[in-house]
Amino acid sequence: MMAGKVFFSVSMSLDGYVAPVPAPVDNLFAKESQDHPEVRRWMAQWMALQQWIFPLRFFRENLGFGDGGEEGVANDIARATFERTGVTVMGRRMFDLGEQSWPEDAPFHTPVFVVTHRRRDPWERPGGTTFHFVTDGIESALDQARAAAGDRDVRIGGGGETILQYLNAGLVDEFTIALSPVFFGAGTRLFDGVDTSRVELRQIRSEPSERVTHLTYAVHRRQ
Amino acid sequence: MMAGKVFFSVSMSLDGYVAPVPAPVDNLFAKESQDHPEVRRWMAQWMALQQWIFPLRFFRENLGFGDGGEEGVANDIARATFERTGVTVMGRRMFDLGEQSWPEDAPFHTPVFVVTHRRRDPWERPGGTTFHFVTDGIESALDQARAAAGDRDVRIGGGGETILQYLNAGLVDEFTIALSPVFFGAGTRLFDGVDTSRVELRQIRSEPSERVTHLTYAVHRRQ
Repeated sequence: MMAGKVFFSVSMSLDGYVAPVPAPVDNLFAKESQDHPEVRRWMAQWMALQQWIFPLRFFRENLGFGDGGEEGVANDIARATFERTGVTVMGRRMFDLGEQSWPEDAPFHTPVFVVTHRRRDPWERPGGTTFHFVTDGIESALDQARAAAGDRDVRIGGGGETILQYLNAGLVDEFTIALSPVFFGAGTRLFDGVDTSRVELRQIRSEPSERVTHLTYAVHRRQ
Repeated sequence: MMAGKVFFSVSMSLDGYVAPVPAPVDNLFAKESQDHPEVRRWMAQWMALQQWIFPLRFFRENLGFGDGGEEGVANDIARATFERTGVTVMGRRMFDLGEQSWPEDAPFHTPVFVVTHRRRDPWERPGGTTFHFVTDGIESALDQARAAAGDRDVRIGGGGETILQYLNAGLVDEFTIALSPVFFGAGTRLFDGVDTSRVELRQIRSEPSERVTHLTYAVHRRQ
């Protein structure tokens, strides 16, 4: 059996950010947060970064928004990324944010392994998503993810810090950046802290779509 | 007469850098500098960033290295960038570095306006390059550049700080990034300090070549 690849796929601003500066509220998505100027700023930046995804047919289907939406290169890429993914691994902060915002029928439809310090029983959602909480580190989470993914690929879902941990540990085979034509000016930079003495890249694919460019790199460990 | 556009075109690392951390020597290119480990580090990073340019047929021709070299997308882009450029504007630091390294027959073959605080008579080089030193600011340098460029375009040559000044002043129409699959980890980041409240982008072209992706954006001033 061919083992799958380990990859990540994120949207990045042209100045290198994958997330805005956090807004100072407990729950971004709570009704009382919506008028907070920092929540509005967070939402506006997040929407600008991800604006290429929301109109896609695949995105609408996958979240159960019904028919319609754009087809084309970006849609094909979004669908292929979903289909190759047998399991997603994510950090605790991404999970906490998602827990506030994902619909009940969470958009993964596969096992998800959450790297955390907090023990918790598996959390099964309708539609095939089950969250498993792993408290013994990123390598253990990846081992469990590989076993569950079979011959499909393991996606390191995020956030930025978790991706960087896997990248610097030499555990990522390739990644795709959807480079968005926006500037954040501040926030979480994906590649701050990358171990430049160990990580070496080769551009393997570069596909423009309507709003962004999808850049794919193979990762090699420098000897 | 159609006025030309104002643009810049630089190579950027995937983590956003356009120049390495400076090496602590007066002249990077002096013989006695070559064994300094920080000079070696600077050179290695610079070469990695620009590695897509050196093998090109156009690059070799333009520096008088003779025949040969690669043709293809990257070569066509490098040639077209040269041909559209009626005048280059650059900052004082880029000039100082170039003065140490350009061949006598400097590679611009057009007027070059250097933004500086240091008065100096025009400096004419063989092959059509004349450096003019402008001491009354970036707008004056651009006005003079536009007048000299006629219907061709004005290139803001660099370095990063000078490009950012023009970008934030709303004086750049479009730009192209050759995104290189390398990480610097430190250095001069092109878009640190970009005025996100004023600068808005639209992706207008995205072309992969063998080693890098050439990303072109139109710049709009946010109202």
